Amino acid sequence: MAEDLHLLDATAQAALVASGEASPAELVEVALDRIDRLNPQLNAVIHERADAARAEAAGVLPDGPFRGVPMVVKDLDGWLAGEPYHAGNRGLRDRGFRPAVDSELFARFRRAGFVIVGKTNTPELGLMPSTEPLAYGPTRNPWDVSRSTGGSSGGSGAAVAACLVPVGHAGDGGGSIRIPASECGLVGLLPTRGRITLGPEAGESWGGLVRRLVVSRSVRDTAGVLDAVAGPMPGDPYVAPAPSGPYRDELRDAADPLARGQLRIGVTTSVPDPNVVCDPQVVAAVDAAAQACASLGHAVERSAPAAWDDAEASAAFAGHFVNTFTVWAAADLDRYGALTGAPLTADEVEPGTWAIAEMGRHVTALQYHAAVEATHAYTRDLARWWSDGFDVLMTPTIPELPPTLGQFTGTVDEPLVGLARAAGIVPFTAPFNATGQPAISLPLGWSAEGLPIGVQLVAAAGREDVLLRLAAQLELACPWSDRRPPVV
Amino acid sequence: MAEDLHLLDATAQAALVASGEASPAELVEVALDRIDRLNPQLNAVIHERADAARAEAAGVLPDGPFRGVPMVVKDLDGWLAGEPYHAGNRGLRDRGFRPAVDSELFARFRRAGFVIVGKTNTPELGLMPSTEPLAYGPTRNPWDVSRSTGGSSGGSGAAVAACLVPVGHAGDGGGSIRIPASECGLVGLLPTRGRITLGPEAGESWGGLVRRLVVSRSVRDTAGVLDAVAGPMPGDPYVAPAPSGPYRDELRDAADPLARGQLRIGVTTSVPDPNVVCDPQVVAAVDAAAQACASLGHAVERSAPAAWDDAEASAAFAGHFVNTFTVWAAADLDRYGALTGAPLTADEVEPGTWAIAEMGRHVTALQYHAAVEATHAYTRDLARWWSDGFDVLMTPTIPELPPTLGQFTGTVDEPLVGLARAAGIVPFTAPFNATGQPAISLPLGWSAEGLPIGVQLVAAAGREDVLLRLAAQLELACPWSDRRPPVV
Repeated sequence: MAEDLHLLDATAQAALVASGEASPAELVEVALDRIDRLNPQLNAVIHERADAARAEAAGVLPDGPFRGVPMVVKDLDGWLAGEPYHAGNRGLRDRGFRPAVDSELFARFRRAGFVIVGKTNTPELGLMPSTEPLAYGPTRNPWDVSRSTGGSSGGSGAAVAACLVPVGHAGDGGGSIRIPASECGLVGLLPTRGRITLGPEAGESWGGLVRRLVVSRSVRDTAGVLDAVAGPMPGDPYVAPAPSGPYRDELRDAADPLARGQLRIGVTTSVPDPNVVCDPQVVAAVDAAAQACASLGHAVERSAPAAWDDAEASAAFAGHFVNTFTVWAAADLDRYGALTGAPLTADEVEPGTWAIAEMGRHVTALQYHAAVEATHAYTRDLARWWSDGFDVLMTPTIPELPPTLGQFTGTVDEPLVGLARAAGIVPFTAPFNATGQPAISLPLGWSAEGLPIGVQLVAAAGREDVLLRLAAQLELACPWSDRRPPVV
Repeated sequence: MAEDLHLLDATAQAALVASGEASPAELVEVALDRIDRLNPQLNAVIHERADAARAEAAGVLPDGPFRGVPMVVKDLDGWLAGEPYHAGNRGLRDRGFRPAVDSELFARFRRAGFVIVGKTNTPELGLMPSTEPLAYGPTRNPWDVSRSTGGSSGGSGAAVAACLVPVGHAGDGGGSIRIPASECGLVGLLPTRGRITLGPEAGESWGGLVRRLVVSRSVRDTAGVLDAVAGPMPGDPYVAPAPSGPYRDELRDAADPLARGQLRIGVTTSVPDPNVVCDPQVVAAVDAAAQACASLGHAVERSAPAAWDDAEASAAFAGHFVNTFTVWAAADLDRYGALTGAPLTADEVEPGTWAIAEMGRHVTALQYHAAVEATHAYTRDLARWWSDGFDVLMTPTIPELPPTLGQFTGTVDEPLVGLARAAGIVPFTAPFNATGQPAISLPLGWSAEGLPIGVQLVAAAGREDVLLRLAAQLELACPWSDRRPPVV
């Protein structure tokens, strides 16, 4: 059995530890061995913690639900005290930045029993939906190494898809959990705004758009991790209402879908932007998932919020998103400069990132504030569809198959080419960062060439329970656990 | 008895309606009669709704907890569809602006049974802590008509203090509920961020600093109104966790203070800014209130958060507050211009407001974003004091007695004189707008000349229950209901 430990999800690995059939040290060795063998090909893990992880696994681990299970954390969206943190940036890499404190989320991962075996690759500052920073080179997709893993949590996506570890930390400000989940064949949940503290180092990130959690191979792992790490810490600027019960309980009746009630599900595969046309295989995957929901007994219809289909509202949202996004890029560069003693210079930053930040330096406070206000108005308009009776919106996660590498990096001559390309990847994901709603990508579709196609489910704010309940039903109806990428 | 109806709080008035001893029409006539008689002296109500209120009182009122009770709403911080909304601004007044929708809060006031008899005066855009707009002239303090009622909810403050109505709507972005409560001898609660929706017309107001509720003469009125109107609406950008039970229940054991547990209360009467020195009578009022808490059995000590006493942190907070405040002023002018078809011009806006907004037009998005981030860091630092074991921070509400009128209005030659003066009023209140915490001002002190002195209590985010519990105990121990301003 020991040979197949890496194929088990975190819940199963934890059960073996709990029963004494496997030790934390054994699980950590499996993960480190797989990193040794597969990472040279994938470039998923950029800072290994072999010695530290071995020491932790050999010591007394907290008696949490994932005791002894190895995981990776992204080199962005959270700090490990004393460990390298480079955010895909050459300046931070060359300056050797190491933060002084742990993010509360990472402390909670450890209190849940996880052993962090390494940190994973990310695009610079997490700006692009593809993980190919100049500082560390591209992460390659285990399903096809010529393709992207998505971003910005693409390093974690590759690590989990290749079964280096069962769970990888991820963060999502425009799709950065869901896009890697889609491109790597994983489960990726964006929680509700305020569900998990971003402290102590941050109150909000990207003005409330970024939320953090994991990518995983099973719905129960995502639900279990959310149960373990959800909640505020003192001084959060706002806090999501607590769930009515454990998220894992939502998975119980997956074989009897209507036991917890029929869901009303609206489906769309379009956005008003004429430049965004979904790949027919993506449309087919969403149609099949919708059909699966109908077969489960749910009420499924073609429907989306009126504001979603409104070309003017949608374009205005996109414009505001870009305006604020450029400011956040500039603010992040400034912050990292301040943390390392001197402003980052152009030769320490990718041309595309530098150009985006320069745009941000010319935005006025009034423009920024107007973008926030407009986003709140858009949120109000979208929310009406859910409060009028729908439970879930189903969409593609991204409009296309996992793109090939090399399309998302700006050059000195054409610094914004990556940003323009990225706009075509995020139209289904970014709106729900803005609205604060939870959304999940599930690996429900597969292309003719065997590439994963994610289907996104979106619930009203605070309703991760609905998403996880339906996700578990779909996982049972359309299982994906037997599908393995070629490198595995 | 009918002669004394105006002296009753809203809870008592509602009880008379429920028992049939008074009719809504009778209560509304009492309020309209008092407005007729006293308002010329006070200038509290600027838009009377006599005919509409009479019609509503004669019709079928919702069967809420305050059925048939008259109230006023502030001419800011909320919309009544079809009614004048001028926000203290000459341009909106002269253009005759009337919004097209009701704020959800005002709809909830009505569903609670309230009859809105008029709209109250406010400084222009609510920027100053004194209600003396050029558009409508000064509101005068019922305790001394040469003095300010505070601001920005000073019109409601005067109306409630003079017993025109028992309850007046109020909103607070830097102290605008608590300061009028302090200066008019009322109860004024700033709820937790996200406790009450600001929709549909807004997601946040002033970047999350503004919250809305009422000023009242009794703790039970404030608790009862909060029970009636708290909660989100679909599309809010974030939502406060629901309370564990009705706030009115917190008042039950007021005569047995330790029945619900001993509270740990820290007291301070200072801020690091050397320009802010509390009036000795204010210090004495806080000391007496602290002594009252000790007599109730609570654990009282001199203590405040470390960041509160840190001169650098405090000055940085103040600087960031001014930076963002100027942006909000400019954004409000721009919004009102857009709502009325053309930008507001300098001759439609007070010189002080115009100058503040001009400052805001020069703030960059990066400066604005940095102010938000710094505010979140300050929030984290302050919160530690509560999470380390304190329940309540007790401070003065303002450092001085109610100031005389005429100090807060900028001129063409000295437009920012009001802003400079305002800085001395808000140092105890504004930080808790920034942190999102709840805070209440109670009329626990009285100067030698009989002027009210407010004492502020501040709890951890989400803990209005603690504030209302202690407030009810203090109301019983140090009752103020027999104190009446000269005009009453």
